[in-house]
Amino acid sequence: MELRLALLGFGNVNRALARLLLRKADALRAAHDLTLTVTGISTDSHGRCIDPAGIDLKAALDAYAERALERLHRGAPTPDTAAFLQAVPADLVVEATWMNPRTGQPATDLVRAALGRGLHVVTANKGPLAYAYRELSALARAKRLGFFFESTVMDGAPVHAFGREGLPVSVIRRIRGVLNSTTNSILTRLEQGVPFAEALQEMQAAGLAEADPSNDIDGWDSALKITVLANVHMGADLRPADVERTGIGGVTIEQVQAALKEGRRIKLLCEAWRDGEAVRARVAPVALPLDSPLAHVMRTSSAVTFEADTLTELTIIEGDSSPDTTAFGVLADIVNIARGRHLA
Amino acid sequence: MELRLALLGFGNVNRALARLLLRKADALRAAHDLTLTVTGISTDSHGRCIDPAGIDLKAALDAYAERALERLHRGAPTPDTAAFLQAVPADLVVEATWMNPRTGQPATDLVRAALGRGLHVVTANKGPLAYAYRELSALARAKRLGFFFESTVMDGAPVHAFGREGLPVSVIRRIRGVLNSTTNSILTRLEQGVPFAEALQEMQAAGLAEADPSNDIDGWDSALKITVLANVHMGADLRPADVERTGIGGVTIEQVQAALKEGRRIKLLCEAWRDGEAVRARVAPVALPLDSPLAHVMRTSSAVTFEADTLTELTIIEGDSSPDTTAFGVLADIVNIARGRHLA
Repeated sequence: MELRLALLGFGNVNRALARLLLRKADALRAAHDLTLTVTGISTDSHGRCIDPAGIDLKAALDAYAERALERLHRGAPTPDTAAFLQAVPADLVVEATWMNPRTGQPATDLVRAALGRGLHVVTANKGPLAYAYRELSALARAKRLGFFFESTVMDGAPVHAFGREGLPVSVIRRIRGVLNSTTNSILTRLEQGVPFAEALQEMQAAGLAEADPSNDIDGWDSALKITVLANVHMGADLRPADVERTGIGGVTIEQVQAALKEGRRIKLLCEAWRDGEAVRARVAPVALPLDSPLAHVMRTSSAVTFEADTLTELTIIEGDSSPDTTAFGVLADIVNIARGRHLA
Repeated sequence: MELRLALLGFGNVNRALARLLLRKADALRAAHDLTLTVTGISTDSHGRCIDPAGIDLKAALDAYAERALERLHRGAPTPDTAAFLQAVPADLVVEATWMNPRTGQPATDLVRAALGRGLHVVTANKGPLAYAYRELSALARAKRLGFFFESTVMDGAPVHAFGREGLPVSVIRRIRGVLNSTTNSILTRLEQGVPFAEALQEMQAAGLAEADPSNDIDGWDSALKITVLANVHMGADLRPADVERTGIGGVTIEQVQAALKEGRRIKLLCEAWRDGEAVRARVAPVALPLDSPLAHVMRTSSAVTFEADTLTELTIIEGDSSPDTTAFGVLADIVNIARGRHLA
């Protein structure tokens, strides 16, 4: 079986995917009789290319570095991503573009357009799920297309596969998670006596926090993630603004250390739970007892706990993450669509 | 779709499954268009029954209590389980019988016979996997039959689904786990200053340890489990006797408490790793640092960590387990076979 891939965005994640595709080409054929051919790459700032015969990924990585993806293009030029999406000869779109976390755009429109054209979609973007999961998953189902998104929460850790494959006919009652690296790392540094501003600067200097860190610090990124989990696994139809939200801006060294003395550790906890027929969600700093697995998630690792009517409590912890682990989640989705996992 | 189930054994697990089937019948139809009908139940001490029209599970639970499953039987009697297995009109066999942990029998022969007859198999029994995984999985594959076993390690927690669905084209380099409740509970009590013999008696009184606990204490149960994980997920062909094994019989209160003072906790650790082309495995008490997720697995919970070339470190922790969670793993397997997960 051959699947032709169109990559939207060629940032850290899709470049890591390109390297992974090169490294795993033989394993994909041997284990799944699957050949993955990239037929198009679209970026806003580094050019676009389409080649129906397949793009040499090593050449694409080089061309990207020179902001000159066009030199790999064959055929009539495509002026923008929307035109690219209509023109590219592909079976599956990998959407890993920039997204406005307050609107989920333009990622949501791109996913809708790809599904509308009859292409499978794998997205690494929380936006389409936090703002339009119900609509997009219904559209995919109606067209019998794959619409998978493993890398949206906890990078490549198979959190969504867990729900899909491991918890059939289960009612998930509660989901709790520690899902944001920046806030988690800052809280760890506070424990060690490093002041908030200094801890944040360290992370920015190391490229682990953004220049404007408010999205993380204020809990908005966490709100997006718990919205995704609630919508996908609890049948909710939340938006990030529905999540009751307190960031870590007010947390002090004294609070963190006092909690530790009482056998507790403050974490920015994401939580979704059933309240009668409704599903509610919140994000807030919570002092977790040290016997909770979520209390031990440090630095850039992350964890989520599912409580269901069938399994009492199930926790998944991911070790330190990187664009490589995110790209692996994308590849796992592609393989699972090729296996037809979206059909039943 | 209808699947007819034959249950081998009607102990804690299959009786919990019967109750779960009653509770989830509507959800199975709604979510998976799946009707599960039990057409036969075979036990050695409580009788056997076959009814091609389907057995009333409430009546079966009552009849079992009276050791009189025969009264639900329709047709010619079957003298033993082997005859039952040939006669029962079924599509899928749920194997949850007693097993000799030193030979994997008679479970292994029963699984072989069921697959040989062309029936899907779901087993909750480690034996067939620890002693004959390679043979039985090849047999199932050749006949395009499902052969799933989620409940063999960590009860219903989707450990095997994790490998199958979450880690495609990955090379698993190392698996570590804390997988035995009896030893884990005893080690917890030693921490609290309760002597070994007393802790063991408590567990026996509560029905959580067997009258002859050597299988757990000596690490043999753990050796079976790491053998299963290595064979299924690392392509190994180990037998339990190949596992280097030290039990917890020599562990003292003093050792456990001294380790805690150094920020470590002694756990009976199961481990499998690659050594060149080979896979090696061992079971031994190990003082784990408290920042390891495996150090926080207490009482009857359990955990496993996978290290792969694609995901650095992925840990699954199951909360306290019971026959209900084991039965759920069996049901998840049945659903996943109905969805064709064994075919690709």
